[in-house]
Amino acid sequence: MITKQSVIGIVGLGVLGGSYAQALHSAGYENIIGFDIDSEALQYALENKWIKEGTEDPERAIECDLLIFCLYPGVFAKWIRENRSHLKDDVLISDVTGVKRAVLNQINKDLPKSAEFIACHPMAGRESKGIRFADAGRFQNANFIIVPTENNTPKAIETMRQLAQDMGFRRITCLSADEHDRMISFLSQLTHVIAVSLMNANDNTNLAEYTGDSFRDLTRIARINEDMWPELFVLNKDFLIQDIDDFIRELETFREMIQKEDTEGMKQKMILSTERRQMFDGKEKK
Amino acid sequence: MITKQSVIGIVGLGVLGGSYAQALHSAGYENIIGFDIDSEALQYALENKWIKEGTEDPERAIECDLLIFCLYPGVFAKWIRENRSHLKDDVLISDVTGVKRAVLNQINKDLPKSAEFIACHPMAGRESKGIRFADAGRFQNANFIIVPTENNTPKAIETMRQLAQDMGFRRITCLSADEHDRMISFLSQLTHVIAVSLMNANDNTNLAEYTGDSFRDLTRIARINEDMWPELFVLNKDFLIQDIDDFIRELETFREMIQKEDTEGMKQKMILSTERRQMFDGKEKK
Repeated sequence: MITKQSVIGIVGLGVLGGSYAQALHSAGYENIIGFDIDSEALQYALENKWIKEGTEDPERAIECDLLIFCLYPGVFAKWIRENRSHLKDDVLISDVTGVKRAVLNQINKDLPKSAEFIACHPMAGRESKGIRFADAGRFQNANFIIVPTENNTPKAIETMRQLAQDMGFRRITCLSADEHDRMISFLSQLTHVIAVSLMNANDNTNLAEYTGDSFRDLTRIARINEDMWPELFVLNKDFLIQDIDDFIRELETFREMIQKEDTEGMKQKMILSTERRQMFDGKEKK
Repeated sequence: MITKQSVIGIVGLGVLGGSYAQALHSAGYENIIGFDIDSEALQYALENKWIKEGTEDPERAIECDLLIFCLYPGVFAKWIRENRSHLKDDVLISDVTGVKRAVLNQINKDLPKSAEFIACHPMAGRESKGIRFADAGRFQNANFIIVPTENNTPKAIETMRQLAQDMGFRRITCLSADEHDRMISFLSQLTHVIAVSLMNANDNTNLAEYTGDSFRDLTRIARINEDMWPELFVLNKDFLIQDIDDFIRELETFREMIQKEDTEGMKQKMILSTERRQMFDGKEKK
């Protein structure tokens, strides 16, 4: 079991890794080692006392009881391939990546049998990059999703649940990798594809002075981390393409109603969307 | 010229008509008559002293120097057709409708030559219906657009500019009907079509507990007034269908990039959307 005295390695001190270090330090975890090739990120975390030590050296992973990878999926997989010999026996490994089926397949393929990988997704993303934007306070309104497989032990699941609770997440749940990736495709990936495409459909920047709330709401996430999202889209492309196709089909149905001046049909669509959205509002309040 | 003592008729005391009455009353206009077939709406406006008198009788329009129609376009056109004989000579007529080419054509066709129609669009819409949701405070962050034609006098334009200023609108501009309808199609109508279609594409209400900011932002306006929007969509259908088609084309381009795993292409799309959105943010701050 992981205790407050266990050695926890956080690999990748970006905005999310930094927030993890901050949250775990605040919760009383005493032995956090930060791993990063960026000495400024290490320095920043040390100055804030979020980590006890900072290092560029992956070989020091051998000291860690728990390693949490806060890296983009490809970099995470490469790290495991290259450094699998530097892992402590019985090490617990976790992550923060936004897609799960592909990451689980890749990591479990390369990991030594003595290590256990328990996949997790803290749903507290933000577009800003870098540890200077780290803010563990954001976890308080966020979901933490644990994605166990049949290879995981109850102890590993319980460890991550405890850690998420200590970091202050609002709601901690378990989903299968399939359920997780379907959910993320619809709620997060599709919405980002829509926002980017709406912003790019026309050069309407001359209209900026007329924007009201609706356009602002729909394009807020068109400011997007272009280094991270394309990789996540590709790793979830079966579900995401299905969702894009369903959405386009629905748009085309509505377009035909406008074309045919079918106001009654549009009205029914709007009554349905209003009802559904009200259900979301209701659940948000909980 | 309209003065604080002129008789101003507000036809339709819904959320927007009520807000107009409230704002004009606060600005010191003394002789506001409210027209509505709903006696409770009249009563509410009277109790709040937003209007001096309330009536169901359209014949009393003959007393008004200025008539502001806060009705859906079809009801507005019907009122003019049926009550054109009850208009004072030289009356100034204005409106609040969200599309302009169709409304201008219809109203100017039916209006007596002695009346002048100056079309306006206060961009302060909200989904809630009825005078009890009236709130003139919302005008302070809103655009007011005057849509003059070659038939309008400078005096009429100046009158509406003064009125909008007195009601506290943040920014008052003039656009042609064509410019207005193009802008509204892209910034407001397309965004509502997207929100409704995203909400309806799948029954994903079971996912409500996992929603983060992005899905919430994109579907907020899926709670929509189903009595008003279908009519506005039909009256602007040429521009709106063009915008839907452009958006679907952009979505399909992005979909192909995901399919082909063209991460570099997606990255360029995201850099563009981020740049454009930043320009919108910059202009919003002004």
